[in-house]
Amino acid sequence: MPFAVVGLGQCAYDILGRVDAYPAVDAKAELGEVLFQGGGPAATALVTLARMDIGTTFLGRVGDDDFGARIRSGLLAEGVDCGNLLTDPGRTSQFAFIAVEHGSGRRNIFWTRGSARPLSLSEIDPAPIRSCRVLHLDGLQQEASLAAARIAREAGVTTVLDGGTFRSGTADLLPLIDHLVVSEKFALQACGGNEPRRALEKLLSHGPRAVTVTVGARGSHTLSREGEEFHQRAFPVDTVDTTGCGDVFHGGYIYGLLQGWELRRTVRFAAACAALKTRALGGRTAIPTLAEVENFLSEQA
Amino acid sequence: MPFAVVGLGQCAYDILGRVDAYPAVDAKAELGEVLFQGGGPAATALVTLARMDIGTTFLGRVGDDDFGARIRSGLLAEGVDCGNLLTDPGRTSQFAFIAVEHGSGRRNIFWTRGSARPLSLSEIDPAPIRSCRVLHLDGLQQEASLAAARIAREAGVTTVLDGGTFRSGTADLLPLIDHLVVSEKFALQACGGNEPRRALEKLLSHGPRAVTVTVGARGSHTLSREGEEFHQRAFPVDTVDTTGCGDVFHGGYIYGLLQGWELRRTVRFAAACAALKTRALGGRTAIPTLAEVENFLSEQA
Repeated sequence: MPFAVVGLGQCAYDILGRVDAYPAVDAKAELGEVLFQGGGPAATALVTLARMDIGTTFLGRVGDDDFGARIRSGLLAEGVDCGNLLTDPGRTSQFAFIAVEHGSGRRNIFWTRGSARPLSLSEIDPAPIRSCRVLHLDGLQQEASLAAARIAREAGVTTVLDGGTFRSGTADLLPLIDHLVVSEKFALQACGGNEPRRALEKLLSHGPRAVTVTVGARGSHTLSREGEEFHQRAFPVDTVDTTGCGDVFHGGYIYGLLQGWELRRTVRFAAACAALKTRALGGRTAIPTLAEVENFLSEQA
Repeated sequence: MPFAVVGLGQCAYDILGRVDAYPAVDAKAELGEVLFQGGGPAATALVTLARMDIGTTFLGRVGDDDFGARIRSGLLAEGVDCGNLLTDPGRTSQFAFIAVEHGSGRRNIFWTRGSARPLSLSEIDPAPIRSCRVLHLDGLQQEASLAAARIAREAGVTTVLDGGTFRSGTADLLPLIDHLVVSEKFALQACGGNEPRRALEKLLSHGPRAVTVTVGARGSHTLSREGEEFHQRAFPVDTVDTTGCGDVFHGGYIYGLLQGWELRRTVRFAAACAALKTRALGGRTAIPTLAEVENFLSEQA
């Protein structure tokens, strides 16, 4: 049976620790709660979808270290297929140490990409991409992402890009993307300016059906090819940890696409998923079920 | 054959990563060099001695996780005996993520003690303590430290305390210590003041033969029972990482005690060990051999 969603990108192993306050330079901080958990933008978006019973497979590569083994077992435990997750012998996995500030939920991410090599063109199996409904990319495997987006475009598969940082090869990818959901940093880098409204227009000129720029606690701004434009607020919650909020937003957004919802409903659903995610330490711990999101949204104005 | 030095205290697994600059709150920082290495005050002091061909054994406990296995194998690889290093089933080891700032060598330590239990009184084998020449404590296993210090005192074994933080039970330990080598923080906490000279006198009133307070790049201050008092400068070196400097200072200090050197020579040797340690990322990577310390000191004024 084909997977509804194929994700391609980076997966990482996260070590998260809660600090009372983010320490000044040259200091020591004892961690309160500590959590070991898989992470990475595309991988965590797929976990979000898996919790809502959407069939997903992840294309990427880990090292053959302990962290790589745990990345894989973490995805499998969530029901994300790993038949396309390769292992690079003798190489190390991406990992991050994430210090989460108690009270504010603000987090500092110290990360390394590890030595495991990015996927090459020849390692992309076109079959799951051709037969899926949505291809989700996080732009962190550039060569493979470009190849996968071309396969998807030819097969009429919807493409979504999670843009965190605008890199040198990103421009080539943009014309192949249907839904661009990017960070404020990405938007401003892509447009060389500091005016978010102008950035939305400029990103839309690359051809996607819709562009959404997420601006953290200030919510998100969306502009569609049809000229629909709206702001979605960030839902207020008692925030424990904002790690992975963007990743989960993407998972929720793709869920909306799969349901065929209109854009405004899709973005509102995504915002609710991201808000609920912040309830606990870890990028994945508090990712909601479908029922939780529905209950939450029914309680909102 | 008895071990010359018994160390009792905490051992940890360190994940070290170099950052261009210590990041502001709520930011991401990509790590340059990354290193996985055993650490912990008493454990790293023993590694320092082992590199100088001194026989050492470590009393402590790790969890039965990957980190615990690596803590043990790291000590064994350095020639530190682990016959007295226990494993706590189903519990986790202490670990730290250490962000080291490029250029300055300043480091931020995010640490957790893990769930492995401290050693209890009944778990202390008195035999290696009675037969050693120096017992080194880092004060992080309080109940066991007190028991071990009593055994050492009865057997006429010299005791050294690495005091990092003055804890509630620390006062009980002080009368059993011969050489107190403590951080500025410990000294000021112990004396409730902010005047280092006064702290030296007050710490000496607990009965040790000598007190040394280390003050980082400003060197150290020493006061002995015989009234000898001196300042030792920190030797200038191109600092890559200051992690473990204090631990290595202790190792060098104990080496001097074993040689029967006078106090001033002992502290100068310890300062050289600590300076040379800073040459590379990691608490243990650049711990010098005896020949390296001797060469270094012969080049100094």
